[in-house]
Amino acid sequence: MDARLSEVKALVQQALDQAMAGLPAGDLRDAMAYAVTGGKRIRAFLVMESARLHGISDQAALPVAAAVEALHAYSLVHDDLPAMDDDDLRRGQPTVHVKWDEATAILAGDALQSLAFELLSADQIGDPAARIRLIAAFAQAVGAQGMVWGQALDIAAEAAAEPLDLGAITELQDGKTGALIRFAATAGPLIANADSGPLDQYAGALGLAFQIADDILDVTGNEDVTGKRVRKDDAAGKATFVSLLGLDQARARARSLVQQAEGGLSPYGENAGNLRELARFVIERDT
Amino acid sequence: MDARLSEVKALVQQALDQAMAGLPAGDLRDAMAYAVTGGKRIRAFLVMESARLHGISDQAALPVAAAVEALHAYSLVHDDLPAMDDDDLRRGQPTVHVKWDEATAILAGDALQSLAFELLSADQIGDPAARIRLIAAFAQAVGAQGMVWGQALDIAAEAAAEPLDLGAITELQDGKTGALIRFAATAGPLIANADSGPLDQYAGALGLAFQIADDILDVTGNEDVTGKRVRKDDAAGKATFVSLLGLDQARARARSLVQQAEGGLSPYGENAGNLRELARFVIERDT
Repeated sequence: MDARLSEVKALVQQALDQAMAGLPAGDLRDAMAYAVTGGKRIRAFLVMESARLHGISDQAALPVAAAVEALHAYSLVHDDLPAMDDDDLRRGQPTVHVKWDEATAILAGDALQSLAFELLSADQIGDPAARIRLIAAFAQAVGAQGMVWGQALDIAAEAAAEPLDLGAITELQDGKTGALIRFAATAGPLIANADSGPLDQYAGALGLAFQIADDILDVTGNEDVTGKRVRKDDAAGKATFVSLLGLDQARARARSLVQQAEGGLSPYGENAGNLRELARFVIERDT
Repeated sequence: MDARLSEVKALVQQALDQAMAGLPAGDLRDAMAYAVTGGKRIRAFLVMESARLHGISDQAALPVAAAVEALHAYSLVHDDLPAMDDDDLRRGQPTVHVKWDEATAILAGDALQSLAFELLSADQIGDPAARIRLIAAFAQAVGAQGMVWGQALDIAAEAAAEPLDLGAITELQDGKTGALIRFAATAGPLIANADSGPLDQYAGALGLAFQIADDILDVTGNEDVTGKRVRKDDAAGKATFVSLLGLDQARARARSLVQQAEGGLSPYGENAGNLRELARFVIERDT
């Protein structure tokens, strides 16, 4: 998996750099480029592996991987804004509104969302019908019934008198991080017009395990390693999988979700080794 | 033109309501619905007339018109934010961040952009290739080389020591309002895969005339009629077409642009009566 992840990282960075090369020079482009630099590229990896399992070439899948990372970067830039989570550190660096200003952060996020859709319209992905399938699914995953909906639930939870229960947190996570992860993992079947059920099962469980691992890292993590502020949720009195389940139960839940995720890979047999490894990595990472 | 504009207004509002009906209930959906209510719907009108001139049915063009209005609404919500233009009044009503809060305004804008792309993927528009042409052109028009670029220039101008000159203001306007207007006016040829040159000429001149008229209204307009704050640019010491040209010259320039715009309609003859009337309306409106 490590070799493939490194390869994907390099390819995606190149695709993003290329997509932004033609933009007018200035703070806006610089802030966009800054926002899409670094990160684990797990979502891009999901796209590329999901595509490979369906006989789609790296060349065809690459704009989709880049689109998913551009969208993810926009969501982080907007989430970090003072009116939202008010974070000053991301991937070990000052967040965009700290390095530039709020207006630039809002605009860079906005333009990264447009860029994501532009990337999904690229010829090299495949026939127009395949691209339309991707775009329709992507728009739903990232909008007011997907990612933005999850983020709105998160904001509302902060203002609420009562902390969320497990069902509400799961719904929130399913939107905020789950929807884009599910899109990424089903990009292959979407392009190939094949059954996306098994990879959707994989990604649903993976996304939830990923969020539980994030909550665990917020408690046990080291800021120097994670590159973002830790112990934030606890300080904010925010309900998390850890605050609701306790550390041991949260770990057990994450492990069981990884098994569920692996179940979704069974139709792909040996070929899905990288995705199997990713599922285990997600709960073992320290960053 | 008035009858057609009323018809377009009703159709577009219906399409937008329908597109949002399936979204989860809550502040996010309410704020999105609030943001897309009202407005002159000039962009939707451009889409519908441009489509009609190319033999595209209202039914097929409607999601495109709704997408353009959703995108326009998002741009207004974000432009009005305290970190941007800091406006408290829009279409005679409190802006979204005043009525709800900044987080909701950021998220509602974000989700309206996603919704715009979702609308452009709708089956009823036409074959997938036509939709991909629309989506690619739209993404470029609204992103970091189009609308968001113009907005970034506008923000930068506020911080600059020297007011902008005429060339810089024209570039700014061409991005901030021109790019989406050009997309709207060329939607018909894009769907029909026809030459978009004439309508692009029309829309380029129309967009510039529209902005000059807006600058004139900021000086001569009545807040009760325009539904937004006036005398803002002057108070902010901002360069506008009026501050650079004077009121009379600005009016003369707008009239000459309307003639240019009409030139772009000549291939369409009598059929383009509505668009001809719109060009004249744009510089005669008081709102």
